[in-house]
Amino acid sequence: MVERSERIKPWGVTLGIVGGGQLGKMLSQSASKLGFEVVALDPSPSCPVSSFCKELIVGSLMDEEKIFEVARKSDVVTYEIEHVNTEALKKLEDNGYPVYPQPHILELIKDKFRQRNFLRTKGFPVPDFRELDVSEIRQLRPPFVQKARYGGYDGRGVVVVKSPEDFSKLLECPSYVEEFVDIEKEISVVVVRSVRGEVAVYPVVEMVFKEGANILEMLVSPAELPEEIEMSARELAVSIVDELDGVGVFAIEMFVSKDGKLLINEIAPRVHNSGHHTIESCLTSQFEQHVRAITGLPLGSTEQILPAAMVNLLGEPGYKGKPILLGVEEVLKIPGVNVHFYGKKETRPYRKMGHVTIVGRNVDEVRRIARFVSETLKVIGDERI
Amino acid sequence: MVERSERIKPWGVTLGIVGGGQLGKMLSQSASKLGFEVVALDPSPSCPVSSFCKELIVGSLMDEEKIFEVARKSDVVTYEIEHVNTEALKKLEDNGYPVYPQPHILELIKDKFRQRNFLRTKGFPVPDFRELDVSEIRQLRPPFVQKARYGGYDGRGVVVVKSPEDFSKLLECPSYVEEFVDIEKEISVVVVRSVRGEVAVYPVVEMVFKEGANILEMLVSPAELPEEIEMSARELAVSIVDELDGVGVFAIEMFVSKDGKLLINEIAPRVHNSGHHTIESCLTSQFEQHVRAITGLPLGSTEQILPAAMVNLLGEPGYKGKPILLGVEEVLKIPGVNVHFYGKKETRPYRKMGHVTIVGRNVDEVRRIARFVSETLKVIGDERI
Repeated sequence: MVERSERIKPWGVTLGIVGGGQLGKMLSQSASKLGFEVVALDPSPSCPVSSFCKELIVGSLMDEEKIFEVARKSDVVTYEIEHVNTEALKKLEDNGYPVYPQPHILELIKDKFRQRNFLRTKGFPVPDFRELDVSEIRQLRPPFVQKARYGGYDGRGVVVVKSPEDFSKLLECPSYVEEFVDIEKEISVVVVRSVRGEVAVYPVVEMVFKEGANILEMLVSPAELPEEIEMSARELAVSIVDELDGVGVFAIEMFVSKDGKLLINEIAPRVHNSGHHTIESCLTSQFEQHVRAITGLPLGSTEQILPAAMVNLLGEPGYKGKPILLGVEEVLKIPGVNVHFYGKKETRPYRKMGHVTIVGRNVDEVRRIARFVSETLKVIGDERI
Repeated sequence: MVERSERIKPWGVTLGIVGGGQLGKMLSQSASKLGFEVVALDPSPSCPVSSFCKELIVGSLMDEEKIFEVARKSDVVTYEIEHVNTEALKKLEDNGYPVYPQPHILELIKDKFRQRNFLRTKGFPVPDFRELDVSEIRQLRPPFVQKARYGGYDGRGVVVVKSPEDFSKLLECPSYVEEFVDIEKEISVVVVRSVRGEVAVYPVVEMVFKEGANILEMLVSPAELPEEIEMSARELAVSIVDELDGVGVFAIEMFVSKDGKLLINEIAPRVHNSGHHTIESCLTSQFEQHVRAITGLPLGSTEQILPAAMVNLLGEPGYKGKPILLGVEEVLKIPGVNVHFYGKKETRPYRKMGHVTIVGRNVDEVRRIARFVSETLKVIGDERI
């Protein structure tokens, strides 16, 4: 696989990032640590990456010409969001331009039904599923889960049907149904694979949901799984990225069922929420790993040095406008608390405005502090809605 | 002291930084983590901070008007280098504009003879010293040390006279002489003090010099001092910053003499080389602490979570032009190695081009890896001189 890395200059690389959100900002910070430069594309001139790049190209992530402009101005292109013009990226790939993760993988992953088929065909364990149209879905006996083929994220595009009353919530878009899995834990494994084929994997992260709701409460690492499940999850995640021949950071979300089985839920072809804690808790962050992986550098160690929990900082419902952070005093006082505020100019209900990583002596401590942070730190706006 | 912090907005601060070098870049990265914005002043449009700020004002650090422009565009001003127009900063201070560390402290510290007098007058232990002109210095019996009053740094402005042959090296500038101290170790203590008067102090760092030369080889933290010397050094450092009523990060360099005494060498009124390792090895970095301190936020924990060593990456003699980094492959492979490359466009002999922080299980390990990194990683340029 050396031919791929030969395109990359050995040092002083300019990274092109399609998307200028928080993931782009954190990628840019890792690039800058290494002295690399960043050119980014985003529709908003004041997006989080705007003050942290050599050049921000303002334009739609669907605009082929703008994506080509990013490529012309950089040595290697990556993206920080799936909702981009995949065709444009594929044209670059077809012309031998380095784009990582490779656009044909992004295309596969964006269609969650194709993604599932790929996983099942290759022998990876997935929940049982099949494609049905909505009229057929109405004939099914609950419980089951309906999932949108395209565009779902952060719990959107997923309908859990537990009883016939839930039929009213069914999505009208292209979708598939999957068996209702009795879940013990939801977990995520962040894997990084370089242009050279070198692979590194982080300890498994537990995604903790609010009691009885489909809302993420916090992420905790390590996940405190039995040793053999931890190892199996890591091996599974690595096998998937190897099977994809993927380059860059990937997050593999899985279910641990009540009967102790691992089932792949979905793949994210990019740096991921479940890897944010690595900035503070691991020897090398997921962001630096992504930069190293796609520029042909050796990967760093994924060793975790402190237990960590991460909570997202979402815009409070009822507010919009200029963000105001409440409770920051109480939170910043606590040892091991890291407030990341993305610098978005406008808040909206449930918009991701920042995140907080807590590192500490043990998992119980970081869970406790994370809960306090969730209750204390609030992003409101200067306008009521 | 609440009146000082009242000027500062509670969140969403714009930081003005006079100087756009690597310290400005790392300050900017900490500011951006918190969602704050940065306006910087530097003579070079492509300085390290140029891609990591909302606005770079291009101009001399001596230009009063440009410094006032930084102040107009920001909520609080700081500086990352001593060689700035102190008079301009003092005018801002006199008009009640928040500038930290306070310019009258910078003025005191810039004149190393006045700094020494201040320390001695306040009862802090310093090597014996006095002001003499060069003709008088020539009458002295070696060994002694001559130090320039103004502008010395990184070993420049210091002449160690061990025998009459060294008289030829004497500086012709305003200077003072100090007793030759038989040094066991040179150490540095980084202290941070906020607008509220809250104080935090980092573990003592050992500055390791090359055998028989006045060239810094590496910094190691913790310094492995006897407990009572460690504690005395920290207390001394805090007392000095308290006595100055200083706000921001300060580094206090000291000698540990062969007979176990602590003597203050000098004060740096800014984030410092001896605190770079805190990015990776401590719960809160010196850069984030500085941002917190001057914007009225609570300070973070200075707890060190892993032993660390830091080596500077200097331009190799014999080269100039576009920097090329040699040996980066071998170095990045090692767990716990963090390469910071500042992004300067031109290398010059001995120019600070980056630094490498090594974290590891114990001090011996990080020292060993730091030595390997020094021998392996070289910055050359694309032109020979």
